[in-house]
Amino acid sequence: MQDDDGGASDRITVRRMPERAQYDRDAINEILDEGLLAHVGMVTPEGPIVIPMLYARDGELLYLHGSPASRLLREGRGVQLCVTVSLVDGLVVARSLAHHSMNYRSVVVMGEASPVEDLTEKSRALDVISEHVIPGRVAATRPHSEKEVKGTLVLAMSISEASAKVRSGPPIDEEEDYLLDTWAGVLPIGIEVGTPLPDPRLASDIAVPEHITKWRR
Amino acid sequence: MQDDDGGASDRITVRRMPERAQYDRDAINEILDEGLLAHVGMVTPEGPIVIPMLYARDGELLYLHGSPASRLLREGRGVQLCVTVSLVDGLVVARSLAHHSMNYRSVVVMGEASPVEDLTEKSRALDVISEHVIPGRVAATRPHSEKEVKGTLVLAMSISEASAKVRSGPPIDEEEDYLLDTWAGVLPIGIEVGTPLPDPRLASDIAVPEHITKWRR
Repeated sequence: MQDDDGGASDRITVRRMPERAQYDRDAINEILDEGLLAHVGMVTPEGPIVIPMLYARDGELLYLHGSPASRLLREGRGVQLCVTVSLVDGLVVARSLAHHSMNYRSVVVMGEASPVEDLTEKSRALDVISEHVIPGRVAATRPHSEKEVKGTLVLAMSISEASAKVRSGPPIDEEEDYLLDTWAGVLPIGIEVGTPLPDPRLASDIAVPEHITKWRR
Repeated sequence: MQDDDGGASDRITVRRMPERAQYDRDAINEILDEGLLAHVGMVTPEGPIVIPMLYARDGELLYLHGSPASRLLREGRGVQLCVTVSLVDGLVVARSLAHHSMNYRSVVVMGEASPVEDLTEKSRALDVISEHVIPGRVAATRPHSEKEVKGTLVLAMSISEASAKVRSGPPIDEEEDYLLDTWAGVLPIGIEVGTPLPDPRLASDIAVPEHITKWRR
């Protein structure tokens, strides 16, 4: 993601393998929109902690389903977070172990997150998170109760300080290793979707809706 | 994971939803052995940072393919890390949005990581990481060169301070919502494996080996 002057902010600059770095907003948004889980890092008095959390992007904002972070929030104050979303696209199988790698796309967002206090915004943020995970689910469920909205913690943070890192394509081996008869290439991996399992308490005449049968990522 | 007195160490105790927490060593090892990527959190002068890294468990030790952390390491000193591995098993589809969730298994390991200096241990650690990602790959590739081993950073940390968190099973809805005609259940998800893509420079008579065609997770 770019600053107004066209450069990435200093702390978000990718120092390792800068040729894999992208600051382009579309690339960042695409990765954030495809991911399911974010790994959220915080600093605690006992050291760093990383927790998997549900999230969604809403324009320039990232919403986090925030209960796991609640113990770090003190009345109205924000918390410094690093939110990382990684998608694994394949195993890169090289002729030497040293050049094995993964094809992946990842985004790192840094900044201060604050709880969403306004109930209307919070209710909408919960809908955005639900739609991010299962598009079409909001229209299929009853509205939130006020108690549910009040009892949920949602954090919001800006995506202004973010970068993407992408690796794709075949392995890059040492030139002399191309003469070896070792197989090399890429094993693509993605998300496999199984058969929906109805809740044991579901009435047998309630069909699986299309937003579940057609769910893909 | 348990201390000698049978209790989890204080900072690793799961405060949110403690009923989902497990400190059992076998559960922790199983999750670590199944994961592909770890999300590693560190504290930098600019705040927390979370980076996806390759890793492997070797008995009581966790090895991390450490290049992304290299800028945090200062001659021989260790670095405080939080290593989180998350496996997503399914989307939990409830009758109300508030009770939507994910079925997942995750492990959090906290502690100080240090670079592996001994070349024999480091070479073996690289093999352990390779075998973790693609079992059978070490036997199919040439040995590491000394230059490759020297040029790679491997971090080691103890798994003594770790906890697992697991959610499984159907959604838990509000009692009155079970009367709704909303579909509810679980959509299982896992890792899909595609067809191996040979390196464009691979000789056409080199067959795809079994450790690639049979790779599953």
